[in-house]
Amino acid sequence: MAAVLATEPMLANGAAGTTSIGKNTKQDFVRVYEMLRDELVADPLTAEQPQFAADHLKRMLDYNVPGGKLNRGLAVADILRVFKHGEVTEEEVFRANALGWCIEWLQAFFLVADDIMDNSITRRGQACWYRVPGVGMVACNDYILLESCIYRILQRHFSAAPYYAQLLELFHETTHQTAHGQLLDIATAPIGTVDLSRYTLPTYMRIVTYKTAFYSFYLPVACGLLVGGVAVPPAFALAKNICIQMGQYFQIQDDYLDCFGDPAVIGKIGTDIQDNKCSWLVVQALQRAQPPQLAALKANYGKDDEEAVAAVKALYAELGLEAAFREYESESYVRLKALIHDQTLLPAKVFTHLLDKIYKRQK
Amino acid sequence: MAAVLATEPMLANGAAGTTSIGKNTKQDFVRVYEMLRDELVADPLTAEQPQFAADHLKRMLDYNVPGGKLNRGLAVADILRVFKHGEVTEEEVFRANALGWCIEWLQAFFLVADDIMDNSITRRGQACWYRVPGVGMVACNDYILLESCIYRILQRHFSAAPYYAQLLELFHETTHQTAHGQLLDIATAPIGTVDLSRYTLPTYMRIVTYKTAFYSFYLPVACGLLVGGVAVPPAFALAKNICIQMGQYFQIQDDYLDCFGDPAVIGKIGTDIQDNKCSWLVVQALQRAQPPQLAALKANYGKDDEEAVAAVKALYAELGLEAAFREYESESYVRLKALIHDQTLLPAKVFTHLLDKIYKRQK
Repeated sequence: MAAVLATEPMLANGAAGTTSIGKNTKQDFVRVYEMLRDELVADPLTAEQPQFAADHLKRMLDYNVPGGKLNRGLAVADILRVFKHGEVTEEEVFRANALGWCIEWLQAFFLVADDIMDNSITRRGQACWYRVPGVGMVACNDYILLESCIYRILQRHFSAAPYYAQLLELFHETTHQTAHGQLLDIATAPIGTVDLSRYTLPTYMRIVTYKTAFYSFYLPVACGLLVGGVAVPPAFALAKNICIQMGQYFQIQDDYLDCFGDPAVIGKIGTDIQDNKCSWLVVQALQRAQPPQLAALKANYGKDDEEAVAAVKALYAELGLEAAFREYESESYVRLKALIHDQTLLPAKVFTHLLDKIYKRQK
Repeated sequence: MAAVLATEPMLANGAAGTTSIGKNTKQDFVRVYEMLRDELVADPLTAEQPQFAADHLKRMLDYNVPGGKLNRGLAVADILRVFKHGEVTEEEVFRANALGWCIEWLQAFFLVADDIMDNSITRRGQACWYRVPGVGMVACNDYILLESCIYRILQRHFSAAPYYAQLLELFHETTHQTAHGQLLDIATAPIGTVDLSRYTLPTYMRIVTYKTAFYSFYLPVACGLLVGGVAVPPAFALAKNICIQMGQYFQIQDDYLDCFGDPAVIGKIGTDIQDNKCSWLVVQALQRAQPPQLAALKANYGKDDEEAVAAVKALYAELGLEAAFREYESESYVRLKALIHDQTLLPAKVFTHLLDKIYKRQK
């Protein structure tokens, strides 16, 4: 069975019919950001405010929205292209990119909040927004604004789309899920408390699923499918199942790289051990440790101390966690490939395209 | 011309036809809260989380959502009844009450955030949520959850309504406006800074409009009209114009009562003077003060000191601000009555019902 398409083709105003359009460059994508930001600043609601309000909004958006790796945002147009075998209109690509930016906006919203809650210092190589002089607790309102911008963008560019209500619900649901993930995360590892007994595999998987997988994997795919004209619920349920598992795999890689990756390649020095993170590695270590090893882990985890970090790393080596990760990685890959190829609702390439980007990644 | 009605009657599943249903009691209204809260806690998304997450959600909702005066929430069903001349179905009343609670949820979301930003101590006679032991900065995520609950409620109870997208946009827009109002407010009176030169009437009116009038007056009316079947944009534009002016009047009363009201009647002792609030009274005083009076105002405003507060109050008396308020009140009433009766799009009673509730209020 071929991929499910909505009965109505998604040709929008200004689109000059179906043409084959080349790959999205990061530059093209950033140009869409600038357009969306300028629209928000010129929005009547903002424009009728005193100049400082518009200035603040622009500065706050520029500081927080576009500075990430943009993988999630860029993925939407990639997925659309794969899904439509490259036959996409300029209008469709614009829509995919606008939704890609809505995902980046959603991420910025959660990161600004997360940094306040975690009392973090830096983010993406600069001071966390709430720590910028003159910002402070205004950041609590700024992340409300970051989120509400998403719905201004959706209203302006998608209110005529047949999938508008679905799109709104998708962003609402993802927000609700991510906020639940944050709650689980904070409750499992409250700031200042080290209690390794809470770091179980089911808890870990739940946090990762809610806090990361929905917005990082399912959301971009679902957006790409909506722009591509997919309308049937089973296609979204299938995509959700595959994307969540991919998101879990991605986060476990992230945890692995934090400890075993090359800092020169990943671009940062991992601090999960000293930060008392509920990482896949510590969860595995807890499952495998004998009583004396468990005691060593408890004595050294969550301490900002070179020797303690080295002791934890030595324990990870002793417990064979690199090999355990390699095994998990291979198993996940096989399982995901089977899931992807054992279905006929959506082209396999929608998912393999994503999977191939992350399989055995070094950064 | 009669009031504008949507062509489709809004009879929903389970409604037993049009019947005359008596006034909403606060008890009936609170029962709807309990139902909505229980649905959220039993929501598959929440229910599949560990018990502590559901417990936290329930406790957080009970602490923050239902403890206010509920005027905004109760207004929706009142407006619906007035609009439909009392001929409403049980289903319509339920819908109006559910939307009333969404407004209370929206308010709770902004109040939790506001208290963190203002470093407030108490709210509605209890500790502010972020100050409750064990909560702290988790409150930054809790207000995200408070907001996202609104869209769970709307999805569950309104996704089949023909006005669903309009409803979502109404809540999005109101959120965006209120967040802009907060930004204006914080930027005008940054915590710890006293700069009376910023307290001009246009600034004051803008803050009041964005921070209060949209969500407190326009939102309940718009919700009542949607449930009542109103569908045409001009009716909403008209309602917005009238409601904003009513909201401004309401906030000016609030500022007046904070200083001149009877604490035994209003249930609290006003602290706008010591809190350096951009109140209508200080704005009026600044407009009327001669240079020596201006100096006295600058020397005493925003100080938590009995003598300073007394000096400001003496100045307000000297400048005749009670009389100025009475004059403003009469003028506003006449202006609003004219606006309400000079239109034929909506029954005048929709607005006079609200206006009569607030005109010359003592609390």
